[in-house]
This record gives sequence, C-alpha cells and structure tokens, in this order.
Amino acid sequence: MTPPKIVVSGSCDHPRESCGVFGICGDPKAAEHTYLGLYALQHRGQESSGIAASNGKEIVLHKDMGLVWSVFSDPYVMPRLVGSSAIGHNRYSTTGSSGLKNAQPLLIQFKGGQIAAAHNGNLVNAAELRRSMEEQGSIFQTTSDSEIVLHLVARSKKDSIEEMIIDALTQIEGAYCFVFLTSSKLIAARDLHGFRPLCLGKVGDASVVASESCALDIIGADYIRSIEPGEIIIIDKEGVKSRKLPSGTQSALCIFEYIYFSRPDSIIFDEKVDKTRRALGKKLAEEAPADADIVVAIPDSANTAALGYAQASGLRFEIGLIRNHYVGRSFIAPHQRERDLDVKVKFNPVTGVLRKKRVVVIEDSIVRGTTLKKLVRLIRQAGATEVHVRVSSPPIVSPCFYGIDISSRGELIASSKSVEDIRQYIGADSLAYLSVEGMLSAVREGSLHCTACFTGDYPTAIPVNFDKELFSKRTK
Amino acid sequence: MTPPKIVVSGSCDHPRESCGVFGICGDPKAAEHTYLGLYALQHRGQESSGIAASNGKEIVLHKDMGLVWSVFSDPYVMPRLVGSSAIGHNRYSTTGSSGLKNAQPLLIQFKGGQIAAAHNGNLVNAAELRRSMEEQGSIFQTTSDSEIVLHLVARSKKDSIEEMIIDALTQIEGAYCFVFLTSSKLIAARDLHGFRPLCLGKVGDASVVASESCALDIIGADYIRSIEPGEIIIIDKEGVKSRKLPSGTQSALCIFEYIYFSRPDSIIFDEKVDKTRRALGKKLAEEAPADADIVVAIPDSANTAALGYAQASGLRFEIGLIRNHYVGRSFIAPHQRERDLDVKVKFNPVTGVLRKKRVVVIEDSIVRGTTLKKLVRLIRQAGATEVHVRVSSPPIVSPCFYGIDISSRGELIASSKSVEDIRQYIGADSLAYLSVEGMLSAVREGSLHCTACFTGDYPTAIPVNFDKELFSKRTK
Amino acid sequence: MTPPKIVVSGSCDHPRESCGVFGICGDPKAAEHTYLGLYALQHRGQESSGIAASNGKEIVLHKDMGLVWSVFSDPYVMPRLVGSSAIGHNRYSTTGSSGLKNAQPLLIQFKGGQIAAAHNGNLVNAAELRRSMEEQGSIFQTTSDSEIVLHLVARSKKDSIEEMIIDALTQIEGAYCFVFLTSSKLIAARDLHGFRPLCLGKVGDASVVASESCALDIIGADYIRSIEPGEIIIIDKEGVKSRKLPSGTQSALCIFEYIYFSRPDSIIFDEKVDKTRRALGKKLAEEAPADADIVVAIPDSANTAALGYAQASGLRFEIGLIRNHYVGRSFIAPHQRERDLDVKVKFNPVTGVLRKKRVVVIEDSIVRGTTLKKLVRLIRQAGATEVHVRVSSPPIVSPCFYGIDISSRGELIASSKSVEDIRQYIGADSLAYLSVEGMLSAVREGSLHCTACFTGDYPTAIPVNFDKELFSKRTK
Amino acid sequence: MTPPKIVVSGSCDHPRESCGVFGICGDPKAAEHTYLGLYALQHRGQESSGIAASNGKEIVLHKDMGLVWSVFSDPYVMPRLVGSSAIGHNRYSTTGSSGLKNAQPLLIQFKGGQIAAAHNGNLVNAAELRRSMEEQGSIFQTTSDSEIVLHLVARSKKDSIEEMIIDALTQIEGAYCFVFLTSSKLIAARDLHGFRPLCLGKVGDASVVASESCALDIIGADYIRSIEPGEIIIIDKEGVKSRKLPSGTQSALCIFEYIYFSRPDSIIFDEKVDKTRRALGKKLAEEAPADADIVVAIPDSANTAALGYAQASGLRFEIGLIRNHYVGRSFIAPHQRERDLDVKVKFNPVTGVLRKKRVVVIEDSIVRGTTLKKLVRLIRQAGATEVHVRVSSPPIVSPCFYGIDISSRGELIASSKSVEDIRQYIGADSLAYLSVEGMLSAVREGSLHCTACFTGDYPTAIPVNFDKELFSKRTK
Repeated sequence: MTPPKIVVSGSCDHPRESCGVFGICGDPKAAEHTYLGLYALQHRGQESSGIAASNGKEIVLHKDMGLVWSVFSDPYVMPRLVGSSAIGHNRYSTTGSSGLKNAQPLLIQFKGGQIAAAHNGNLVNAAELRRSMEEQGSIFQTTSDSEIVLHLVARSKKDSIEEMIIDALTQIEGAYCFVFLTSSKLIAARDLHGFRPLCLGKVGDASVVASESCALDIIGADYIRSIEPGEIIIIDKEGVKSRKLPSGTQSALCIFEYIYFSRPDSIIFDEKVDKTRRALGKKLAEEAPADADIVVAIPDSANTAALGYAQASGLRFEIGLIRNHYVGRSFIAPHQRERDLDVKVKFNPVTGVLRKKRVVVIEDSIVRGTTLKKLVRLIRQAGATEVHVRVSSPPIVSPCFYGIDISSRGELIASSKSVEDIRQYIGADSLAYLSVEGMLSAVREGSLHCTACFTGDYPTAIPVNFDKELFSKRTK
Repeated sequence: MTPPKIVVSGSCDHPRESCGVFGICGDPKAAEHTYLGLYALQHRGQESSGIAASNGKEIVLHKDMGLVWSVFSDPYVMPRLVGSSAIGHNRYSTTGSSGLKNAQPLLIQFKGGQIAAAHNGNLVNAAELRRSMEEQGSIFQTTSDSEIVLHLVARSKKDSIEEMIIDALTQIEGAYCFVFLTSSKLIAARDLHGFRPLCLGKVGDASVVASESCALDIIGADYIRSIEPGEIIIIDKEGVKSRKLPSGTQSALCIFEYIYFSRPDSIIFDEKVDKTRRALGKKLAEEAPADADIVVAIPDSANTAALGYAQASGLRFEIGLIRNHYVGRSFIAPHQRERDLDVKVKFNPVTGVLRKKRVVVIEDSIVRGTTLKKLVRLIRQAGATEVHVRVSSPPIVSPCFYGIDISSRGELIASSKSVEDIRQYIGADSLAYLSVEGMLSAVREGSLHCTACFTGDYPTAIPVNFDKELFSKRTK
Repeated sequence: MTPPKIVVSGSCDHPRESCGVFGICGDPKAAEHTYLGLYALQHRGQESSGIAASNGKEIVLHKDMGLVWSVFSDPYVMPRLVGSSAIGHNRYSTTGSSGLKNAQPLLIQFKGGQIAAAHNGNLVNAAELRRSMEEQGSIFQTTSDSEIVLHLVARSKKDSIEEMIIDALTQIEGAYCFVFLTSSKLIAARDLHGFRPLCLGKVGDASVVASESCALDIIGADYIRSIEPGEIIIIDKEGVKSRKLPSGTQSALCIFEYIYFSRPDSIIFDEKVDKTRRALGKKLAEEAPADADIVVAIPDSANTAALGYAQASGLRFEIGLIRNHYVGRSFIAPHQRERDLDVKVKFNPVTGVLRKKRVVVIEDSIVRGTTLKKLVRLIRQAGATEVHVRVSSPPIVSPCFYGIDISSRGELIASSKSVEDIRQYIGADSLAYLSVEGMLSAVREGSLHCTACFTGDYPTAIPVNFDKELFSKRTK
Repeated sequence: MTPPKIVVSGSCDHPRESCGVFGICGDPKAAEHTYLGLYALQHRGQESSGIAASNGKEIVLHKDMGLVWSVFSDPYVMPRLVGSSAIGHNRYSTTGSSGLKNAQPLLIQFKGGQIAAAHNGNLVNAAELRRSMEEQGSIFQTTSDSEIVLHLVARSKKDSIEEMIIDALTQIEGAYCFVFLTSSKLIAARDLHGFRPLCLGKVGDASVVASESCALDIIGADYIRSIEPGEIIIIDKEGVKSRKLPSGTQSALCIFEYIYFSRPDSIIFDEKVDKTRRALGKKLAEEAPADADIVVAIPDSANTAALGYAQASGLRFEIGLIRNHYVGRSFIAPHQRERDLDVKVKFNPVTGVLRKKRVVVIEDSIVRGTTLKKLVRLIRQAGATEVHVRVSSPPIVSPCFYGIDISSRGELIASSKSVEDIRQYIGADSLAYLSVEGMLSAVREGSLHCTACFTGDYPTAIPVNFDKELFSKRTK
C-alpha cells in the first residue's frame, strides 16, 4: 500500500565503504571545523552524519539520517555543539543494519563519565565478543562495532580512561580507525594492520585527525603524517602523545582505498591517491593495450586511472559520459520503469565523442557488472563501433571483512564467472583486468597492503561463523 | 545567535507526567491499534512517541520526537510495523533528559534475543542500580529507567525470559508500569505499590494493556480490570497468565492521577476518574464555601471539579475562560513579549460572563502559581468584582519520586509560603485548598493512595542521594 | 497507489467559515501582532495562513498551508516581515478551491503600486464579474473573490487608491470584510449588509481591525466598536478615517456567527457572543423542554448553549463527552477503519456521567447529521437510558451565499427530511430544534440579521447561475 | 536576530541561466516523463521546479522551491498529476524576483478556459508591455514574463487558442522559448531570433519539446530537430503542426549556451555542444599558447574546452581540482568564515598533480573574477610554479537582456578592467581570453549567433529604460 520509492544510490555498482571519521582538539570552533571535515569526507558515507562536542564538562551529540549539510541545517543545532574538542562521523548503510540507531558517534555514560566514539572499519571478532558479552549479561542497542568497544572500555579494570581504551583495543581484531571523545581528551586509534587510513594534522594550536587529508585541507590544517598501524594518539591540553599497541603484525593497508574509495586529492597511508591511481591506469595500459581511438572513463571514480591509461597508451582521453550530480536521496522513479533508467538517471553518453569511435572504457572495479552492462549498451547506442572495457584493478573474488561492504559471494560476478563470461555478460568487445602483480607494482610498498578481495589471502583470521568453503579459494 | 523560540507548552503550571504506555497481543492490526491507543493517551506525554511491533520473529521499532499523529504521518512508517503484537509509549520530557535518545520504547538485543520495553514511572533506586552496574562495567546510552531494567533482565541467570523479567523486577524499587515485548510475548508489570495505573482489556481475541481505559475505548476494547500492584501479566498464544511479585507491601496509588493527570472519561485503579474528580469538587465546596455569584473552572483540567463545586454549593457553573487548543509545539512568540502573553495565548476571559460578578475560580492544583497569578489578573481585567480561588487538592509541599515531574523544591510555592502569602501572590480575594482529609474522603479507599506530594509521607525509601533535610518535613 | 490519508478535520459536521482577517497600522511590531491576532482567529480558518507587511516602501508577503504556528515557525520568516503595518488572513478550504494558490493575503502589482488584500465572505456576483472581466481579457490565477476585487481596483479610473478601492467595492455584491494593505495605508471595508463581523480596536498609537474581538484581546488592544455595514475605514499616518458606501440597504448580519462560528469570548456586531449563545440555549429550553436527568453539550461549540439550557430548565449541566484536541492535520487512520472511528478519535463518552441517565444532548446546529448519529450511538453505549437531542438553532434548509460553506442541498439533512425523519436517522428518543422566532428573540435586534440558511429568505439577489428551483423555497 | 545561512550556490562566478522547459503530449505517463526531463535539465535552474498536467479536461499543477527530486518527493504529489500531456519548468532565481510566486509553470483561468505556461528567456519589452497593461487596469501577481504573455493571450480577440497565442507572441520582443499547455494542446514557441534553444523529439506516439536534447535521452525519445526561430509547434491528438511567426529577422542564437550553459552531452541549435566546446578550446590553444607542463580545467564546466586545449597544444590534460558535489541548498557555513571557504567547499586542488608544475588553467568564462582569484591562490598553495589562465570565451563586457543573469555592469570585471588588470587581480602569471573572431570560427554558422555580452552589439532594441551610456560600448 506504500508508494514505490526507488532510491538511486550515490554510487552504482561499487563496493561501499563503511565510514569517514574526523576529530579535532584545542579549537574554539571545534564543531564548525568538524562539520567542514565531515563535508569533505561525505564520499565515505552518505546515510547518516553526526558530531559530538565537548566543552570540558559535558559532551553534546547531534546526529541524524542524511547528508552532512542536511543533518546540520536546522539553525538551532550547531549553536548547541559548544566546546573546544569534537569528533564526527559519516556512515554508509550496510544491509540490515541501517537506521538512526546505528548512526554515529555513539555517546555513552559509564563509570568513567561520558565517552563518545566513532568508528571506521569492521571487527572480525565482533560476533564472538558480542556473544560472549551477551552471555555475561550485556545488552546491545545497536549493531555497530563501536558499541562493542565501548562495552570493553567500560569493563576494563584499568584506572585511567587512556589505559581503559588501550585495554579494550587489545581485545579486538580486525579493521578499525577509532576516534574517542571524553570530556577532556581526544583519542584516535588505528588497528595493528592499518587497514583503513587515518592521518594527523595541525591548524593553529589545534590537532586534527581525519580519514583522509582532504578533510584537513578544507579547514586549512597542515598534513603531518599518517597515524601508524597500531598507534594510539592522545590529544589534550598537554599536547599530542603517541603510544603503540604491542604487535609483531605486518601492515595490511587496504589497497581498495587507492583504487576507489579515497578522494584523488587526498593523501592516505602517506601517499597521494591521485598518483597511485594514475599509476594503476598506466600499468593497465601496459598489460592490456587496446586497438582503439579514444579512452573514456566511467566518471568520476575512474577518471584518474583513465588519464593514466591514456598517457601510457598514447590514446586520447575523452569525456564520453556525463554524470548527473543532482540525484537526491529519495529520488522517486516513475512507477513503470524505463529500461536502464537507473543508469540513465546518472549517466548520459556524449554522442559526438563516441560516434564511430573504437572506445576504451576505463572502470576502476567491477562488483556485480549490472551497471557496466547497461553503460556498455548506452555507449553502443551512442554510436561507438567497438567497446573495450579495461578495469584498473583485478577481479574481485572474495568478500571483505575489514570495512568494505562486499559481503556476499552472490554479488561478486568474478567469483563465479571467467573473464570471458563476464565480457559476454556486459557485452563488451574485449575485457581486461589489471593483474594482481601489476596492481602491487603501481602502489608504493605494495607488499604492505591487503589484497584479500582480489586474492582471498586474508591477513587475519576470518570470522568464526563464516563459511570458509564458500570463500577460501578463488572459485574458478 | 540562534533565534528565540518560545515553546508554549501544552500544560501551564501543572506537574508533568512521565508517560503513557500501551500494549496489545494477538491482533493482526496490532500496530494500528497501538497508534490509536497512544493517540488516546496523548495527554500523558507529548514530547515523543514510539511503537515496537513483533511479527513473531523480529521486532521493528519506530519512534521520534513529536505528537503521535506527527511521528507516524510518513506513509512509509506504519506499513513497516507488521505483526500481531505491539507496544507503544508517549513520553513527556523531564528536565535534563530530553531528546530522541530517551524516547521509548527501547529495543535491545541480549542473550535471549530482542526485547523492547516501555515504562511509566520512576525508580527510586535507579541511581544506585546504575552506579553499581557501571562499577561492574555496564554502559548506558540513555537516562531512562527502562535501560536499567533491561540491563537487569540481561544479567539474570534465570532460564526463561519470563523469569528473567521477574528476576529484574524484584531488584527495582519505586514506581513503574512496564510493558515488555519479546518476539512472542507481551509482558506487563505494575510495581508493588501500584503507583501508576495500568489496566487490562480485551477486543476480539486480542488482549490489551493500557495506562488508562480511554485507550481501550478508542479501539472498541472491553475494560476487564486494573492490573494489581505487584502483578505481572504474560500474554502470548497460550492466552493471558497472571503472576504476582512476592510482597507484603501496602498499596500507594497515585492520588494525583485523579486530581489532574488522567482523562476524566478514563477508569483507573478500577474507579471512574470523573466521579472522583467531581467528589473532590463537592468536598471542596463543603470545606471552603465562597460568597459569590458564579463558579468558573480553569479549563479543561478543572472542569469536572468545578461542576462538583457548583453542584454542592448551589452556585451557577459558568464558562468564564476560553482555552485555545491550537498551540503548536514550536510556537514562536514575538521577540519582545507582551505582558502575560504566555497565558493569553492559551486562555481568554469571557467578559460577558465575568463582568460585575463575584467569581469562584476552581483550579485542580498549584505548582508555582505563576500562571494562576496571571489568570487572576485577566479575570479581574474582564470585570470580575471578586476572585475567590479554590483548589481541589491540598498544597503541594514535597517532591514526587514516583513519576511526576515535581522534583525541585524551589518550584513549589506551597513549600515555602503560607496560604495567605500565596493568596497575596496570586492576587485573589480569597484562597482555599482542599484538606488532605477532605481529599482522602473523596477518593474510593483513600488510605490505599500515595499522598506524598501533599504530606511528605513517602511510601518507600527515597533516593539515597536526595537531600532529606530539604524535603523531609513540610517547611511551612 | 498512494497511501490512504484520512484527515480527521477540525470540525465534524459543522458548516465551515471561509476566513478570519486581521490588520494593524502604526505599530513597530505589526507583523508579530498580526501573527498573534491570526492565532486567536485560528478557529475561523485552519487550512492556510498568511501575513503581508509594509515598511512604507515595499510589501513583503509570507503565506503557506497549515496552522498559524506552523506557517511562521521557520526562524527566517518573521524577521523578513518588517514594517509598521500588516494584514493577515486564515483560510478554510472550500471544495475544489483548496491549495496554496488560494491562500491569502493576495499581493499584486498594479498601476498604483503594490496592494495586498485579505477577504472574509463571498461575493454573489463573483461569477458574473469574473466572466465579464474574462471577456474583456482578464486572467485569473486564483478562485478567490479577492482577486476579482483587485482587478476592479486596478481598472478604476479614480485617481487615489482610496477612491479606486471604493469604486471597486461599489461594483461588488454579497458578503465581504476586506482588509487592504498598500505601502502606506490600511483600508478595511465591510459590505452593505454587514454579513460578516469586523471590529475596530486600538493599542497604543496603533489601530487594529479584526474579524472578532478575541484577536484584539490577545495583543492587549482595546475594543472600540464594530465597523458598520457599508463602512470603509482608512488608517494611515494621519489617523483613522471613516467613509460610507452609498446605501439604502437593510443590515443582514449573519446569525450563524452567534450560533457557531465566533468564539464565545468574542464581541461581534457590538454584542457578546457568549451572552447570545446562552440566550439561544435558554429559549430552546423554554420551547423544547425534556423530561431528563442531565444536560450534556457536544463540546466545545455547544457548551454555552447547553449552559443556558441547563439554567433555564433546572436540569444539571454535565460534561458527558471528552473532546480530544490532539488531532493533527494529517492524522492517518489505520487502513481498515473501525466503526465510528472518525468520531471516536474526537470524542469519548464519560460513562460515569451518562450511565442510567436520561440525557439531553445539546448541539448548536445540524448539517448532515452523520456525526450526531454516531455520537448518539456512543452515548447510548455508555449507558444513557434516553437521549433527547436539542438543537440551539432551526433546521438548516438552504445554502449560504455569504461565506459559509453550505453550498450543496444534498448535504443538508433538513432540506429533504422532516424533524421526525431526522430523529429516526440519528437514533434519538426525541429531537427538537429552536424555532426561527425563538432564535430571533434571543439575538439582539434579531430583525437586522440574515436567516437565509434557515428560511430561504435571501437578503440579496442570489447568484445568476444558481438553480433557483432547487433552493428557492423550503422543501418540505 | 536570524541565524547566518550562507548558501553556497551551485555555480560559483558564472552567469546564471533563467530556466529549462519541457513538454510532452500523447503520453499516458506524461507527468512522470516530464519529471525525468526536468531532472535532466536541472543544471538550467535549481531554485524551483514545477509540472502542470492535463487530463483533457482539467489542468493540475504542482510546483515548489527546490530541486526536482525534492519538489516531487512527497508520495501524494505525482499521482495527482494525471493525464496524457504535461509541461514542466526549472527556474533559477534572479535578484529581487525570487520566491514561490515566480515559480513556473504559471496556471491561469481566462475566457478560453485554463492555460499553463512555462518560459525560458527574457522579454526586452516586458516593462513597457507591463506598464501599458497596468495603465489599462491589469494586475500582476508575479514578476515573470510568462504572466505578461498570458495577459496578452487573454486579451486577444482571435477566436481560437492557437490564434490567440500567436497574436500574443507577435506583440512581444526579446528572447523566449515558451511551452503552453491547454486542456487539449501543447504549444511550443521560440522567438524570432532563436536566442534560447528548444528542440523537438518523439517517443512512441508522443511528441516532446525540451530546452536541450539530454532531456529527450533520459526518456528514450528520439531527437528530431531544433524548433526554428519564430516557429510555433502545436501538438494535439491530430498530430504535430508547425507554423511560423512573420519575420525578416536574422537569427541570434545565444553563443553562451555553447560556452557554458548547456550540458556537453546535449544537442542544441542542431549542433553538439561537446563538439563546439572542444573547438573553442582548440582555437584558444592556437590563439593563446602557453609554455607550461599541464592543462587543468575548472571542473566541470571547463572540462571539454580543456580537453580541446590539451589536444591542440600537445600539453597533457590533468585533473588538478576535485569538485565536491555534495553541497546542499542550505549549506550553513560556520559563523566566522575561513579565508576562501566558499571556494574550498567546492574545490580542492590535487597536490600531486600540481606540485612543481607550470599549469594552464582553463576556465570557460569570467564574470566577477572573485572565484578565479581564490582558485589561483589554491593552485599556487598546492605547489604550482606558474599559473597561466586561459579563458575559452572573450571578455564579458555587456549585460544580457535575453535570459542570462548578467544584468549589472558592476559585476563584470572586464567591463572596467583591462586584461592585464584582471591578470593582476586574479594573481595569474599570464591571462588570455579567446578572441571574438576565434569564438565565431569555432561555432557552426557563427554569424547566426548573438555575441552581445562580448561585443555590445545587441540584435534587438534594448529595454527602454536601460541606461545606454553605461553599456553601449565597451568601456575599456
């Protein structure tokens, strides 16, 4: 009886990131700067947004569903978020756990007072920890990993909040960047493998942490460095202190951050995203040249790789698809849907560019292939004589347990189909992926990165109740 | 820098109730009927509203700030609340704990699965329990008592959810009516003293519980009986089961429910509110007659008592004040406020009724006296030659710990001023309150009621950290 | 495909008024006071609300669908409405012409500059004027009579705005109270018959006009007098000037304003509404006594008449129905509707009052009788042994052309059924209406009033294309 | 007293277009397709949006402030827009005339029934016509040119609606694309000079008109041709009919549509925008080469020209600025604004691309130069060693009277400053504009285009009360 509301999501056929985090301490305009930082990190999460601010005595929180500008557009909201430290969070929904209750930061009261937390990542022992704590009588109001960690903090027998947090962190496994806010401290932590990016910056007397450096840029903060895997940064009136979790663990930086997630103008893992993404495109051109006239990107995420491909191949880079950025969160599509409408609403081919051309189409990655299939059809309809798809990453064959929403094997076309089968499915004249080796050679210190979604080689134990048979090896 | 938003609250100068609760089980339209029940209970809480519904497998919750009709006005909301059992809650804000995080029902996951809870009342050992659980490592995300009880349920070692709830209830003290919803059961519980009302009804094959019988009427349910103090009602497919908490405790029904909170068309504590309220007015006429021409009520809460006063005194009942019901939740008053505007926005005197008359004004209770002072002034301006205020309850001298928002001594005019001082303050020609004895004689089985706010005689130990000196005896 | 939205309107089974108007000049807080005035006049129109304010140079307008508090709740709105003069309007929807385009005030540009207008009433020669102007090439963007008058003003050859308005008014027939706002003047006008009320007040140096005096009370303005039929009041820096339209017309004040529309605390036509309404009740008791135990009103509109009936009959006045004031504008009723739900949502019987009683139920008027039928059923279910309905006005048999929404004969139960038939339809033990003579005797200078809806005697020619056969004489 | 709301508009420092229009006839899903068409035309107007649909008997209209998806997101709205023909409109605000009253389509009633109209353009004799009609007694409720034309239609003595519209069009001068909707016809008209684009398409049995062909693409309609200057297209059940206004006028197609307004994937004036825009870039490279390392566009509008520049110059095209597309309509910037925040909110430089590079920055046009000045600063801060700005159009020196919002001389930096002065102002190492000749050579049939904003040579008489002295010649 309810009307059909077809949400055309922000990103067609890409894996989805969990979150973006931001924190600032020692800044009289802490909440305002957090707002700007979250705005710059909007691409990392568009479902909900929130800010917790501390005035030294009390932490006040505001969060809601929606984009940053919308969540904070009520003129009564920002003036309530007073104080010189604040943390913020943007969240992407993941199946089954959507809704306001999972919006972050989470704010709780415990024996140590108030504490707020925001999290980017995914704990691999979350279910285990949760089950164990439930057995001991704990209750859970959200399905977020943050709540698990806050329980651990509260149960710690240590006698300072800093030690309690470290105590909690030693019990969790998997991927996390956490920012914690107490009445007087901002504490940021990155997991031992360093899956997700987190950097440190400075503006005036204030210290800043953020998922990507683009959030530093917007507030005029200087980039200092990446927070190291296993490092904990404690910021308060005394200044910035660094501690390390005990570890013999090898780094496993998420290589997908370079391929798709991060903004090209960001620095992550102390390296420029743009530079790496371009190198991926160049390597792809070397590995998989194409006899074609022009190179076209699926905008905007494949733009940089396409530039690299064009440069290395000597083919001309062209803008062959125009992307419409006006899609709203609750775009209601007409009742009876046109063929390919969901893709047409986002992309329109530029006929003059494509007509009578042999086209190399660069995409950064393929999950299901459904969008790409429609785009190839649109590009042909616009007059392209040949369509050669080149993908600036290897086939995705395994799920991610570290914060990227690739969780079901069924949705990974490459987990069950050969490259040739995929080519036929999407209707391209040729299809080639970048090799794993090629990818690693394009990334600075490639061996320090996690490539599990491409290789099935997981740097950690995987969740206990996960069906290993289904995923443990590349299926074909 | 934010604009001035002056909320003219629903109720001027009355104590505020915490909540209204409703539950239904065995009804294919459970959520719809809960919606109607909450609508009928709107007077018990206007800040937030929520419904949790169970389809036998999963519990879905929707809650938000606002009146019932507004919280559920989005056409996408109600269709999500499927299932044959549901509970609902209306909430009044209490200082310092306002906001969506405290909206109810609360829905958690624990070792026994999902459980939702809604609460009307106030636990006197809440702070103690909370502190103790925090010491043991628990975290709290709300300031509501419901969360405390859910922690206790989750910590119970009992092996059925029913026993776990009973185990939890034996640890709490104070005032509560709880409705719990699990995937397959609806469990309602009333505290040992029975402070707050809760009744049982039936419609078709479904069983219903509600704070007041008016919520049964709107869905066409039959009133069965009041749930007894210390009684626990378990409703599921097997039918309705009653259990009792062990107790030698004397009842302490909240007498203020008769005086002000409940709707006059409701039955509470197995007695008609209207009948009792009228008896209070009659008794008041006997105790405190006035040499006057007409009897006028402060509408709408004092209407029935005024009718009783008029009947017993032989004076004519008149409608001397018109109440404006169009006040919205975010009524923004003009920047520079007129004298008495907050009262004028709600009441306008009927000059033709009042001019050249000696008027008895009936009010049901006085908290601060500020509104009454302005009303007396308005009534005089309308031409009344004498204004005799009669109050159908005794002076409020002590705070309530059982769910009524009378928590600070400073706001109780009668805790520091004599009746004569109050008369001067409000500017009446005479002022009289009903005596405690008179009040008790008007209420069926008066001795079973709590009169602590009028007498300072608390039926339970009072909260540990409460300053007894300030409140233990009538200050006079 | 759209979800069912069942709006439970503010007023069940009563004719609906078109509008309330307000104007103020010479007040630095003109818009704020207009906002309060409109709030006090909310009962005259609940669909849309608007304010136009002039700062001496430019007129700014804000209007929207919704109640007054809601239309002006955005903090950016009121600060834009600057200036020392303003007019405002509340509007009730009438079938087929609903929606924002008909919200008022209307603001236009013409050769004389800007002019805003707000209107209460209905022109009987509107269709004729409109057709004639359309023939001459005029365009219409609304279906409101105000637009017609603004066309006439703009077409006038007179050389001052004041004369142009008077020129326009001499061409229209029917019922109107107009408030016009130009950059420097506020002009209020009432039609020759004076169908609708309009009064003049004063607060400080400012002059005020309003549909009812309750709008003066809320801003602390003094009531001066009713603006006379055919009178035009011009207010500007020079002061207040009165002019009269040429006329030999007899007054025809709308008697229904006393019966139902106006607030009982208002003065209209220089007489107190409360006093008249009570006299109607008394007269009804004389004409149609009942052998009963108690007198109960359909709240709130019949309260005062019921008090009069009780007083004259010696029967006891009781509150037998509780009205729920929390109905929102877009109350969504559950999908499958309960029997009588629309009435139950608004009224609940007080069983303790009604059980085993012979009840006189006072209603002020009957349009369709459908609501009353359900209320009688509810009252019987509550235990009343006899239900005697008494109506404090005569049967409504003819449509109104002067601003009341009784436009279709089909909806008037009394136009085709006898009193006995109506009694059977509503299920009462007895039914009696007040006689026309009785009604006239209760109203001050009754002969000066319009009684067309009760008698079919229209004080003006009726609209040209109206089917006279159907309505010209009382049908039974 | 109101809070600071700093709207960061969609487009920094570009002239703003008035509107986009769409119409469809003979389509059972007329309103749904209009919705999609407007969505594709969102770039032509983002302030308000509206659709009028006809079911053959009645025209229903919905319009509101906001983006297309937001204006039609209420599930109750689209189902009301029934019928097989519809027109739609997106509007950009222009100073002083903002607000809902000017949202389009406009819907009126006149002697011929209902007619709705939507307009893109600007009439040069609007003020004159309006004044003259006001003198004759007309009233105006909007400041839009559409209302003027509707007045002319209504005043026409012709005897069919088609003739009446033609009669009206012969009286207006200036730029217009009109779509009219009557109960049974869709009529589209383009002015004699053809300033603004309007094309004709077909999908199934339905005919479509739209400002740009991208609106045909999204609904799967085929492009037929551009509607000619002075052509009137009448679409009804009988089919599509074409008529011509009498004319000896030379075409004057707006060259700015190619430079900036239209989407690159659109066809306008029967030519591909992308192709022309690229040619402009190539010509610019020829005329104004730069000794540099890379070519960077101000995204997204200058992308295509930058590709052309890169291709012709042999320099590498790079993505040096990332544009944030998440800016909402009511983005509230923090109270105390950071330096350059308005620009940083939209653009972030890619340091890895720019560092130690000599950069050619391509912009399509310069109005004020304020944004460009900030961008040059950002680019230098990112490490560029030289910044050479190249503009793919000539200096804008004169206002536009044909629908582009360049109305005040003060805002045109090139009207008072030399190129060298502008270079200094924006802080570039070199600055060059495309010459008028170069521009004309890049556009198909360049001589048929209006270049008034670059040359001051207006193809029509300019508005009577416009100060010719100020604008008639390039001020230099």
